[in-house]
Amino acid sequence: MTTGDLSSKLNRDQAQAELFDLLRIPSVSADPAYRADVRRAGEWVRAKLEGMGFTARLDETPLHPVVYAERLVDPSKPTVMIYGHYDVQPEAPAEEWKTPPFEPTVRDGRIYARGSTDDKGQAYANIKGVELLLQEGELPVNVKFFIEGEEEIGSPSIVPYLQAHKDELTADVIVISDGSRFAKDVPTITYGVRGLSYVEIHVQGANRDLHSGSYGGAAPNPINALCEIIAKLKDDQGRITIPGFYDDVIPLTDDERKMWASLPHSDQDFMNSIGVKALPGEEGFSTLERIWGRPTLDVNGIWGGYQGEGSKTVIAAKAGAKVSMRLVPGQNPEKITKLIQEYVPQIAPAGVSVEVIDHHGGQPVKFATDSQAIQAANRALHRVYGRDAAFARTGGSIPIVAAFSEILGTEVLFVDYGLNEDAPHSPNESFAQEDYFNGILTAAYLLEELGNS
Amino acid sequence: MTTGDLSSKLNRDQAQAELFDLLRIPSVSADPAYRADVRRAGEWVRAKLEGMGFTARLDETPLHPVVYAERLVDPSKPTVMIYGHYDVQPEAPAEEWKTPPFEPTVRDGRIYARGSTDDKGQAYANIKGVELLLQEGELPVNVKFFIEGEEEIGSPSIVPYLQAHKDELTADVIVISDGSRFAKDVPTITYGVRGLSYVEIHVQGANRDLHSGSYGGAAPNPINALCEIIAKLKDDQGRITIPGFYDDVIPLTDDERKMWASLPHSDQDFMNSIGVKALPGEEGFSTLERIWGRPTLDVNGIWGGYQGEGSKTVIAAKAGAKVSMRLVPGQNPEKITKLIQEYVPQIAPAGVSVEVIDHHGGQPVKFATDSQAIQAANRALHRVYGRDAAFARTGGSIPIVAAFSEILGTEVLFVDYGLNEDAPHSPNESFAQEDYFNGILTAAYLLEELGNS
Repeated sequence: MTTGDLSSKLNRDQAQAELFDLLRIPSVSADPAYRADVRRAGEWVRAKLEGMGFTARLDETPLHPVVYAERLVDPSKPTVMIYGHYDVQPEAPAEEWKTPPFEPTVRDGRIYARGSTDDKGQAYANIKGVELLLQEGELPVNVKFFIEGEEEIGSPSIVPYLQAHKDELTADVIVISDGSRFAKDVPTITYGVRGLSYVEIHVQGANRDLHSGSYGGAAPNPINALCEIIAKLKDDQGRITIPGFYDDVIPLTDDERKMWASLPHSDQDFMNSIGVKALPGEEGFSTLERIWGRPTLDVNGIWGGYQGEGSKTVIAAKAGAKVSMRLVPGQNPEKITKLIQEYVPQIAPAGVSVEVIDHHGGQPVKFATDSQAIQAANRALHRVYGRDAAFARTGGSIPIVAAFSEILGTEVLFVDYGLNEDAPHSPNESFAQEDYFNGILTAAYLLEELGNS
Repeated sequence: MTTGDLSSKLNRDQAQAELFDLLRIPSVSADPAYRADVRRAGEWVRAKLEGMGFTARLDETPLHPVVYAERLVDPSKPTVMIYGHYDVQPEAPAEEWKTPPFEPTVRDGRIYARGSTDDKGQAYANIKGVELLLQEGELPVNVKFFIEGEEEIGSPSIVPYLQAHKDELTADVIVISDGSRFAKDVPTITYGVRGLSYVEIHVQGANRDLHSGSYGGAAPNPINALCEIIAKLKDDQGRITIPGFYDDVIPLTDDERKMWASLPHSDQDFMNSIGVKALPGEEGFSTLERIWGRPTLDVNGIWGGYQGEGSKTVIAAKAGAKVSMRLVPGQNPEKITKLIQEYVPQIAPAGVSVEVIDHHGGQPVKFATDSQAIQAANRALHRVYGRDAAFARTGGSIPIVAAFSEILGTEVLFVDYGLNEDAPHSPNESFAQEDYFNGILTAAYLLEELGNS
């Protein structure tokens, strides 16, 4: 079944007016002062879905409620669960907003408001897409909505919620629209996220701080030792030296590398955007490959000795660093943490003792680019944008994806309607009107295409 | 002229009673609450010297006064200036003192009191030595006393004072007794101190903190870069890699190395005392050689990124470290600072910019062990201890010595009466009665021997 072109059937004024109503609710999940507003936004979404003929509930959690809704049309049809969040980032710094964050305003084709792109605008595009389809008749697939109110504070209630509602939340695919397309003219499907292993290295030298005059040259210096350890974790080619680190890495395929090489990326623009003159990194890989497809090791924090003004001639008793490793599909966070815990003592210089503390990890996740769902998404995007989607990955670790993958075992489909220039989390967050409307159309076509696959 | 054995002529009870009077004055220079007491201690010393027939003044400085006294007996005789300080460290932690810090108490042959060894006891031994000689007749040399009240706070008034009184303070040798003998049975003459070059390294990566998921692997990480730089500053043999760093080092002579090797030093005891299991350092040199006779490089502080609890996945925009290099005779602090300022940018990895800020430096100083003054000191010590002195150096940088050397151009003779076990700066500071009395005898013999040389 295909409805054909729905574009002419979309009431854009109405779609925008409804979104504006949602954007006006200051559902800042991080700020207790807005707790009632967060709930009000959840209830607003629930009521909307109920009005569309869904069975819709507001499920309590220890903090902000989850909107759960479903419309099950036919057990023999695929089931699609749409994830999103109705909470938003705080507005700070308030003085940098050109128009108030909770009074949505259109300028130059863009809707300015906190949450316009992240994620009210994108989540509501998916809701409106379903509604658009419903105008044509019954839905071609079973649809569940799972719209939470804690995403901007790390979704603390999500794992227990998923565990408690495991059976109810079964689906063939989970759709998430909460990010950015690669570029304006490039519809994008994200099929992988990196994982994470995060440790803290502690180095102990003498049993007390020592005077660097009386002891310098003879006593072990834990800061020098820590630097030596960290320097040894990578070689001259930017490769991580931990034995076994790369053993389980699923190599990038030629197709993936070709696909990414064809994307409109400029190293010069990338360098300009962060103000650097060179991009060190693992030799033999492009910038996109390094971010999306290769594991990395970054020190996220370091400390030891005297950090104040002026000079102090002390040899510190101890020093420490926080070190995170982004992992790629195939790698296992627990195993990688174990490997670095075994390796650091081996490369520590004589005279110091070391400890490597496990902070937390996250599974890398990758979905097959030739899955039925991804192919369906590509067809849907093609109908809107007139071209095939770029298949991208993301360098970050998205805990909700690992949770969906681990607890529900469900494939996740990222179909993003936003752009980096929307400035989510920043002042003057915005969402192009065109992207919002295209999102609605994409959502409708996606369900159709999923119904056809 | 030699007086022969003065031991029987020393009134020990009287000498101890006078020292106790001085020790009872809480002349804590760091604490404004004791400012009047500091002055009282200075005045006490001045009055004592005046009573001994010296022209004695209390010279004002912006903070605590200097005691200056002189007894010029014959322009054709050598002039000896005795330096010391009448101020003391704070008593903290007060609760750890077994007897009150400003109520001198004798236990097991030791005088317990703040300042007992550092430096009231040692400085007053020199005063009493002069008085002992005066009992026998006129002094064999011209004697000047320069006893300050700011040593424990870094002698802020000393350089201006020396500059203002340059002509008056001329001497053939300056005697300082403000440290420790190498070991109980080892009279010690210290003939060299290390210098210092202290810099701060700043590393800048991107123009803002970045998310390690979105940028990790591609963006430069200034903390990793800083660690790499620091690790590269030394090679596998513990040698500093800065080109030209060792060029001006005056090598240790075979005599020096033999002399130090003969001293009662145990690496195992040294390791036990600081709680480490190995002593890394420059290969090919003993522990004493590393501390006294070789330049070193120690990171004294490091910082960057997230230092709080838990984990944060940030790539910091900047990182920094404080790095000090102890220098040995021949090396010049300004030159060394310039060398590291040139070298760090060369070894910095691509993608970061670095800056090396000059904090301050200090000249290394070494005096000839065959100088007339040192030979005289050795003869004096031999008369007291029945054996030759050990010729040691110290790993620290003593600014006053560099100031004497640079401003007055005068040789400095360290003849220490204390021991490490006296615990200067710690609770329950003490000074062995025997060491105090031997100090008085040494001081008297030293002036005789200097008069004979």
